[in-house]
Amino acid sequence: MLKLHGFSVSNYYNMVKLALLEKGLPFEEVPFYAGQTPQALAISPRGKVPVLQTEHGFISETGVILDYIEQTQPGKALLPADAFGQAKVRELLKEIELYIELPARTCYAEAFFGQAVEPLVKEKARAELLAGFATLKRNGRFAPYVAGDQLTLADLMFVFSVDLAYAVGKKVLNLDLLEDFPQAKALLELMGANPHMAKIRADKDAAMPAFLEMISSKR
Amino acid sequence: MLKLHGFSVSNYYNMVKLALLEKGLPFEEVPFYAGQTPQALAISPRGKVPVLQTEHGFISETGVILDYIEQTQPGKALLPADAFGQAKVRELLKEIELYIELPARTCYAEAFFGQAVEPLVKEKARAELLAGFATLKRNGRFAPYVAGDQLTLADLMFVFSVDLAYAVGKKVLNLDLLEDFPQAKALLELMGANPHMAKIRADKDAAMPAFLEMISSKR
Repeated sequence: MLKLHGFSVSNYYNMVKLALLEKGLPFEEVPFYAGQTPQALAISPRGKVPVLQTEHGFISETGVILDYIEQTQPGKALLPADAFGQAKVRELLKEIELYIELPARTCYAEAFFGQAVEPLVKEKARAELLAGFATLKRNGRFAPYVAGDQLTLADLMFVFSVDLAYAVGKKVLNLDLLEDFPQAKALLELMGANPHMAKIRADKDAAMPAFLEMISSKR
Repeated sequence: MLKLHGFSVSNYYNMVKLALLEKGLPFEEVPFYAGQTPQALAISPRGKVPVLQTEHGFISETGVILDYIEQTQPGKALLPADAFGQAKVRELLKEIELYIELPARTCYAEAFFGQAVEPLVKEKARAELLAGFATLKRNGRFAPYVAGDQLTLADLMFVFSVDLAYAVGKKVLNLDLLEDFPQAKALLELMGANPHMAKIRADKDAAMPAFLEMISSKR
């Protein structure tokens, strides 16, 4: 059985978890906080979450894990059948990751953990996030899902990145990144009503105190 | 016929070009400097290079383009046959991109174009590059290729990222990122002797003056 290593507060962990739940696959969750210890680096070369444990070994990097699950496991398809359609889903996923999730992440410490971020970092995040949201508006189909009329891997990256980036905009950058982007707001609502999201939110809430404790003990 | 839009100075462009050459595919090169003009954004949602034009439409993001070519085109395989082996190649490619190419890129302006980079940016790049090279050392097979005994997509990301990151280390960070990493040095040499690399280097040299002119006119 597939084992998913990570913790329920991580948005990348939850992308993979939602994929497994949507596909109706059995899996085991293994608590793993990542980091730069020899134990962590033995299963994740960069010390990051999530890690998928398969019968052949460990896989890191969320996009890679999602592709592997899609390629090898049964259940509801989260990619279209044709290669070009698949490429467009992967393109959207990558754009959301590189141009929305990663710049927003540079400000998570201030937005969510009360640690100030340098003005230069915020300035860069602002410019990148504006360009990233413009990219998504330009390239997303929102019909109603990011890549068309079916839920795909791109929606997993979307739902767990755009909400946090929106919060970073509001809390740190004084910016409403979803203003004039009703399609994205509607998709966040639609995904929020997905029954598996309720479980993921509940697991996240339950895991949050221990996570905050860990963060605070590391300062 | 596939059309590759971009310019020969771009390392990402050259990754795709090397894939096409290695696979022995016919393709047309279309000069495209990217940017935020409506014309550029019409074919690349984030205004970046390269873009692959297929019979079905345009594809952006190098990793996505490489997977699409591999999935749809004939010629020498640049991925192993099994899904787990493919995932490991994609994991290595992604690690090199996220943890080596992207942090090094934050210092390209100073390393290659005589524009000073903020100390905070350099400090961040230094920490990330050290972790990125440690990740590659930990996870790369170097037998002699990054993922094993065959040239794969991971080697394309490697050869056009590690050389630039090494130069950034030397020129900007006073750091020898390949010290104690003879396997990576050996692979750079091996790849450098690849006959297609000679064409790519010649095309890059020929394109450089026009590129520097464009950079300088934009300041």
